[in-house]
Amino acid sequence: MKLALIGAGRIGKVHAATIADHPEVALAAIADFHHPAAEALAAQYGSRAMDVEAIMDDETIDAVLIASSTPTHADYLEQAARAGKAILCEKPIALDLTRTREALQVLEANPVICALGFNRRHDPQFSALKASLDAGRIGALETLTIISRDPAPPPSDYVAASGGLFRDMTIHDFDTARWLLDEAVTHVYASGSCLIDPGIGDAGDIDTAMITLTTASGRLCHINNSRRACYGYDQRIEAFGSAGMLQAQNESETRLRFTGEPGQVEETPKWFFLERYATAFRHEIDDFFRAWRDDDTPLAGAQDGLAALMLAEAAERSLREGRCVALTEIH
Amino acid sequence: MKLALIGAGRIGKVHAATIADHPEVALAAIADFHHPAAEALAAQYGSRAMDVEAIMDDETIDAVLIASSTPTHADYLEQAARAGKAILCEKPIALDLTRTREALQVLEANPVICALGFNRRHDPQFSALKASLDAGRIGALETLTIISRDPAPPPSDYVAASGGLFRDMTIHDFDTARWLLDEAVTHVYASGSCLIDPGIGDAGDIDTAMITLTTASGRLCHINNSRRACYGYDQRIEAFGSAGMLQAQNESETRLRFTGEPGQVEETPKWFFLERYATAFRHEIDDFFRAWRDDDTPLAGAQDGLAALMLAEAAERSLREGRCVALTEIH
Amino acid sequence: MKLALIGAGRIGKVHAATIADHPEVALAAIADFHHPAAEALAAQYGSRAMDVEAIMDDETIDAVLIASSTPTHADYLEQAARAGKAILCEKPIALDLTRTREALQVLEANPVICALGFNRRHDPQFSALKASLDAGRIGALETLTIISRDPAPPPSDYVAASGGLFRDMTIHDFDTARWLLDEAVTHVYASGSCLIDPGIGDAGDIDTAMITLTTASGRLCHINNSRRACYGYDQRIEAFGSAGMLQAQNESETRLRFTGEPGQVEETPKWFFLERYATAFRHEIDDFFRAWRDDDTPLAGAQDGLAALMLAEAAERSLREGRCVALTEIH
Amino acid sequence: MKLALIGAGRIGKVHAATIADHPEVALAAIADFHHPAAEALAAQYGSRAMDVEAIMDDETIDAVLIASSTPTHADYLEQAARAGKAILCEKPIALDLTRTREALQVLEANPVICALGFNRRHDPQFSALKASLDAGRIGALETLTIISRDPAPPPSDYVAASGGLFRDMTIHDFDTARWLLDEAVTHVYASGSCLIDPGIGDAGDIDTAMITLTTASGRLCHINNSRRACYGYDQRIEAFGSAGMLQAQNESETRLRFTGEPGQVEETPKWFFLERYATAFRHEIDDFFRAWRDDDTPLAGAQDGLAALMLAEAAERSLREGRCVALTEIH
Repeated sequence: MKLALIGAGRIGKVHAATIADHPEVALAAIADFHHPAAEALAAQYGSRAMDVEAIMDDETIDAVLIASSTPTHADYLEQAARAGKAILCEKPIALDLTRTREALQVLEANPVICALGFNRRHDPQFSALKASLDAGRIGALETLTIISRDPAPPPSDYVAASGGLFRDMTIHDFDTARWLLDEAVTHVYASGSCLIDPGIGDAGDIDTAMITLTTASGRLCHINNSRRACYGYDQRIEAFGSAGMLQAQNESETRLRFTGEPGQVEETPKWFFLERYATAFRHEIDDFFRAWRDDDTPLAGAQDGLAALMLAEAAERSLREGRCVALTEIH
Repeated sequence: MKLALIGAGRIGKVHAATIADHPEVALAAIADFHHPAAEALAAQYGSRAMDVEAIMDDETIDAVLIASSTPTHADYLEQAARAGKAILCEKPIALDLTRTREALQVLEANPVICALGFNRRHDPQFSALKASLDAGRIGALETLTIISRDPAPPPSDYVAASGGLFRDMTIHDFDTARWLLDEAVTHVYASGSCLIDPGIGDAGDIDTAMITLTTASGRLCHINNSRRACYGYDQRIEAFGSAGMLQAQNESETRLRFTGEPGQVEETPKWFFLERYATAFRHEIDDFFRAWRDDDTPLAGAQDGLAALMLAEAAERSLREGRCVALTEIH
Repeated sequence: MKLALIGAGRIGKVHAATIADHPEVALAAIADFHHPAAEALAAQYGSRAMDVEAIMDDETIDAVLIASSTPTHADYLEQAARAGKAILCEKPIALDLTRTREALQVLEANPVICALGFNRRHDPQFSALKASLDAGRIGALETLTIISRDPAPPPSDYVAASGGLFRDMTIHDFDTARWLLDEAVTHVYASGSCLIDPGIGDAGDIDTAMITLTTASGRLCHINNSRRACYGYDQRIEAFGSAGMLQAQNESETRLRFTGEPGQVEETPKWFFLERYATAFRHEIDDFFRAWRDDDTPLAGAQDGLAALMLAEAAERSLREGRCVALTEIH
Repeated sequence: MKLALIGAGRIGKVHAATIADHPEVALAAIADFHHPAAEALAAQYGSRAMDVEAIMDDETIDAVLIASSTPTHADYLEQAARAGKAILCEKPIALDLTRTREALQVLEANPVICALGFNRRHDPQFSALKASLDAGRIGALETLTIISRDPAPPPSDYVAASGGLFRDMTIHDFDTARWLLDEAVTHVYASGSCLIDPGIGDAGDIDTAMITLTTASGRLCHINNSRRACYGYDQRIEAFGSAGMLQAQNESETRLRFTGEPGQVEETPKWFFLERYATAFRHEIDDFFRAWRDDDTPLAGAQDGLAALMLAEAAERSLREGRCVALTEIH
């Protein structure tokens, strides 16, 4: 698979490193709004810098990975679909439902493989939890608890352009919830506060949130967000059912334990998503390649992006209006 | 301290055993609606069976422990207050706010030491968590998560008379939340389902719930309830703040670990509240004795009972009306 | 069972408290070389102080618990056997083999129930490990590892009279090894150093040791001793076999975990044997009572005391001579 | 650094994959006694197959990695030294002391960078333990415990040519012990049994062993070996000292925990050394490159190979003669 990478920023670099190591995917080209960034990254991995237009026109390129800034996602996705290329698009497709739906219509008219970058579905630990759930290990799933806390809050100006906590950060948890609940979410209740950084509040956003999702059959899901966990990237899931409980625990660099003053001490969790989800990013590329090779469905697709965004919309309305919001209200 | 026990049922027996071992509290008398039960228990611990009226009239008796059936709590509490006895009353004072408030007025008119049986405040692990919070170990508290799951659901007829999940079971968690949040709760949102036992649904109740509490300054608290955790009594607390996190974990009988097929296996949590909170019940009596001896405030008092019941009322209304309820709405 | 306690020192007080709480064993009398100590303890538990001779002569007394100083154990044991009383004797019977064997001959001539105070066999966690072993959980046992470290070294003058590390401290581990290996130990190799307290070395003893036991069929056992573990009483066992591994882990007061600076921190292990083995002391009395009531064998008897002492002798010779010692050399 | 790999077998393939990914080391050539194996591996990584002689003669090649069969190590090492190439040699240099010493003399006469493949020194968890030790985290080191168990025994014919358990398997633990004890080992005692596979016994070897090392100052070290741990690759280290304890625990693929029947279950340890030490192999190459680039000492060198082999010799003599062996006896 000859793949072109669009976007040579932080997440683009992560993907470039992964693809460079991949035995079956070649990093055919790299584009970036800031051309020197594309050139530097291409030099590093023996690829070449190209314009997005040239990439779309190049028939030898099979696939594109869209890792540019959020406002460009939908445009590039549409161009790639029209060019008949397989697509792996970083989340979100767009920050609003209308633009997202337009992109989905283009995809419908130009049916190509389209995967969405919900990397957590590819995390080995979460995958194992999902497999256990599907195998009936805990019987009927009844409640789900997702703890998702970033190590440090983003700068206020990032926050202002982010679409808000629910669209920027919780969006991952909404997708995880949908994936694991395996049933339509019907109601959303969200509460939130600004407790960490007043600048985030000034930007009209929150930094601490608790969300309750309810599904058609009455399953309940709790999402627990914070923009700052001083001890690292706190990423845990607890699934509770009629026959038991599954818990995905945090991971640390080592399992070294010291016992003495001040107690029995192990390392704090891995600090950031690049470390915590390093394997997930590799599996994401594997899954995209597999879907392309076998003309199969990727683990997370464009419709999942729309569905997660609808939950974010509902959460935002719930927070604003102080009430439980039915998904039927979100259009 | 000469103490009379009212109620020789399950919880009464637990208290009798604790008091019989206590170096400074004497089990002076035992009363029960079913007199032979009182006689049997009195025989076991070298105490004597008496009527409630006789207990109230006996000036040598310093204190009463009200562990009879819930509908009798408020009456006995009022009688004991008028008789000038120190009181340790099992929760709840009553299942409705009006009756609870009447009892509190009698207490106000007859000021005696009055402790309420919120045993979890006396659990060594939760006490240690509270002490760490108070010592500033995690900086400013931001969110609190309380997992509270019973090992097995009660019979449906118990449910029918229980006042519902929030008044019967979550009431403990409401108290724990108030105690740890250390700030007024202003809003309650509750969602719930009947996923375990249809009989509970037929009795008009739920068996699975998630509740979100919000405090005046924006702290958030999640309560996670189930009437049935097949692996035992699941009692955990997670407090998250600006400088870290505290987690009270489940306790097991032993720390024995087997490694082999099917994995690394340790015991499930202790099965029921009598085992899990055995130490808490002893500390509860210690605290009551201390308050009586020093004419001091017990760790949990009658006002805490009223406050927890108000949260239960708010939760019930929230569940019924599908919206967030302000505490100012509860009268 | 009417039981008389001989010895009102530290361990005597532990036993007195346990017996006072026991529903089926009455603390009929207490003796101590220092009579006021016996009187004080008797007053505390509503018992009476008596001379040892009077106890032996009192036909209403069924059993004696010998918890006096080590040099008196064998004499009291012989007197009690001749008086036909059931005996629970603190370890060791004597510090040398000759005296121990004499006492065993008296027991043979006067067959009474005789239990030895190897309290660890009664620890719930070690009992559970033993039960798992016996149930074949790990298949054939191949190796055993016993970590046994005291929190703080004893005073040098205690050391001088103690009979040395192997007789005083490792004796418990020798018994644990015999109990779990379930097979005759044939060879002993011991190495040891004085690394903690030079005063212990001056007294001719060691404070740090590693011992290897080999059984008839080739099972291997490692014992790991230190007189000082700064983090508490370190008591662990690991049994390894063809189908898996069992590990008895240390216990802490609480399972509270803090995550933040400097890591994920839990409490250190319980500090001393009174805390760690509180339940074991209760079960030891239970087992003694059961053996007396049913005329049955106690879990640890006088022969176990002799056998453990022979291992200590072999270890000492091994250390002195720098070679592996066969049990056949010990007479 | 242009590096040639000698040996395209199991461990050779591991190194080839690591080097192919390395940004600063080029896989310049691959040799194997079985030439097609070298060709296949060279094709996979874009390298070329060469004879050993040609490699030694090629002045553009900076370094060789000797990963061929054990009997060839010393010869290749000498050739490489004479050719002035930096050397990374898999352990052992040879199975006997004489041949090892000869090779060391050639190295002395031809001083090149020579690293030895004691991969465990490069494991992140063991490195962290070593760093903590060096930083004084546990004060003065007093005892060390090394648990090292393979998941499954090798075939009997492998055993026959392996040099025996101590030279083949324990050699790693001897090196780890030397590295961490940071002091000369003066005495060795070894006991061993054949409990797992009678074929191993028939080949004159043991499959289960316990070894005690004593250092000059009296530090004690216990090594615990088994050729078969049914639950995976069991690799743990415990360092105990005056100010605490450090424990390197086993690692599992995930931290997923199931709670229900039959308990609280986590995954067994990683199954084999390729998984457990994947990172260690990368760091080993990093360290070798660093030493070559900076003309510095590698973390483990040829002298370390000799020293570990001397401990293996001492252990073997101890086992054979049933006594403690002084290192001064080993020539």
